[in-house]
Amino acid sequence: MGEFDLIARYFTRPTAQAVLGVGDDCALLQPAPGTQLAISSDMLVEGRHFFADVDPHTLGHKALAVNLSDLAACGARPLAFTLALALPRVDETWLAPFSRSMLALADMHGCELVGGDTTRGPLNICITVFGEVPQGQALLRSGARAGDDIYVSGTLGDARLALDAIRGDLALPAELLQDLRHRLEQPTPRVALGLALRGVASAAVDISDGLTGDLGHILKASGLGATIETSVAMNLLAARAHSAWANELISHEKWLQCVLAGGDDYELAFTAPVTARDAVQLASHYAQTPVTRIGQIDAAPGLRLIDAHGRELRRQDASFDHFA
Amino acid sequence: MGEFDLIARYFTRPTAQAVLGVGDDCALLQPAPGTQLAISSDMLVEGRHFFADVDPHTLGHKALAVNLSDLAACGARPLAFTLALALPRVDETWLAPFSRSMLALADMHGCELVGGDTTRGPLNICITVFGEVPQGQALLRSGARAGDDIYVSGTLGDARLALDAIRGDLALPAELLQDLRHRLEQPTPRVALGLALRGVASAAVDISDGLTGDLGHILKASGLGATIETSVAMNLLAARAHSAWANELISHEKWLQCVLAGGDDYELAFTAPVTARDAVQLASHYAQTPVTRIGQIDAAPGLRLIDAHGRELRRQDASFDHFA
Repeated sequence: MGEFDLIARYFTRPTAQAVLGVGDDCALLQPAPGTQLAISSDMLVEGRHFFADVDPHTLGHKALAVNLSDLAACGARPLAFTLALALPRVDETWLAPFSRSMLALADMHGCELVGGDTTRGPLNICITVFGEVPQGQALLRSGARAGDDIYVSGTLGDARLALDAIRGDLALPAELLQDLRHRLEQPTPRVALGLALRGVASAAVDISDGLTGDLGHILKASGLGATIETSVAMNLLAARAHSAWANELISHEKWLQCVLAGGDDYELAFTAPVTARDAVQLASHYAQTPVTRIGQIDAAPGLRLIDAHGRELRRQDASFDHFA
Repeated sequence: MGEFDLIARYFTRPTAQAVLGVGDDCALLQPAPGTQLAISSDMLVEGRHFFADVDPHTLGHKALAVNLSDLAACGARPLAFTLALALPRVDETWLAPFSRSMLALADMHGCELVGGDTTRGPLNICITVFGEVPQGQALLRSGARAGDDIYVSGTLGDARLALDAIRGDLALPAELLQDLRHRLEQPTPRVALGLALRGVASAAVDISDGLTGDLGHILKASGLGATIETSVAMNLLAARAHSAWANELISHEKWLQCVLAGGDDYELAFTAPVTARDAVQLASHYAQTPVTRIGQIDAAPGLRLIDAHGRELRRQDASFDHFA
């Protein structure tokens, strides 16, 4: 199968919203009047972002999900995406489930595949995603204010726990690993929450590189500090709720590390004024996405971690850095 | 150097046009009212699109140029681009010239770097480029009409000749190879011509995979055929004009193959009604880009090649296919 047949079979569908989709030198989008276009790009590399033997069905989902998560963090409504794909060979048993799961997630969010590129090379998936947001309403990292509450959506740290178990660094029962693996391989982009938080949250960020590292981006952009209640944050590890014996299998240090700096969670961390607590709960309810208040923004720079008794802990600063 | 330092040092600059550039979860663009956004994405892989030892200065230029060429083919004005980059290691002696030449070309076209991604992995450069075009004025592949003239910009086949010589498939004098190599490694995107052809050309395509293959896209999209005068097209090989001995070094077959199916030229092929010949010459003059009329669009399907005496030649059908 050649390049053009491959594109036609797996990646070309009629477009409902875009003016022009796959098949010309460019795609054409027409953003609605009064809106801005939000753009994000993520590149996934074999051996770095996923294992060589990963199920192509989960990979197709995840590759798009991590991009949609960036739109969610800006409060943008997904419109379209481009897919550039380097493949070692044309393998239809890989391409069919990969494209099917990617396009299924795209359909769930009304996000059309409008173009891209295919070439031979070491497996590499580069997606650029486009969303629309009313002018001036995007959630930015720079909007936090001293005194704001800090929230995170969903659960934290389970993806990292799964990664450690798959790598053999941690022994977990098969049943538990199966649940955690789903969090690693099939993340749910918090698009509905991002939309519901427009006009409510003061700042937001996608937690893909770990809570403390990504929250650090808000602090840096806003010129502020923060205090996190680790006892609250640590309860966000879903693995703990899943099974009584998880406590015995996972050391306190590992637990703390997974929650604070695990990475690959694709939840949102966001800030909102104390006066917006009801509005945040309404947004959470409307988006059917749990959110938990884990701390507050401080005028003093730096990130402080405190335990249930208000005692300060040593900072775990391990955000994920692709070149560290 | 870590990922964030690398981005800050080599790929972050203030934006003049974009609402928000590098440094948040998304970039924000605000297309002008009444315009559509043209989007194209190209992925360049080491060993496939460039040699491992290519000068990073030329690679930075080319990676963006091939994307700008797609905007040119749609008649879109460049606005912005994202860069996703997988690097085997952080090598500042590579990154500095790579980013410098890429951003220099970007500046020439007012095209801002607004976001992207960096990760460790086999060298891979994925650029997605954004341009703006007044609603309904984009040059599409589907607009050709029977009787239209067919034109190409610039010269054809020299990039392929250089590639063959570098690969050792063809012996060329060093001086000639130096000139040809420039065409392969430093293509000039025909952005000004694309803009000047809005409202003049009926269809256009970027010749990156070879003239006959890419012209075939116009024919397929327009449901038409074409006749190419090979004697005219063959004079577009710049190498021939450069030196008298080129004729002796390059066989007639090689010459024909380079011109008709060479690839990597990044010129435009476009069609225009016979009544627009003066307008095409004005566009060429205004854009300071030579154009040559090489044939015409036929109602009958298929691509016919004729010699100077109107005799039909066997069709050379070798468009470049990344999986063929």
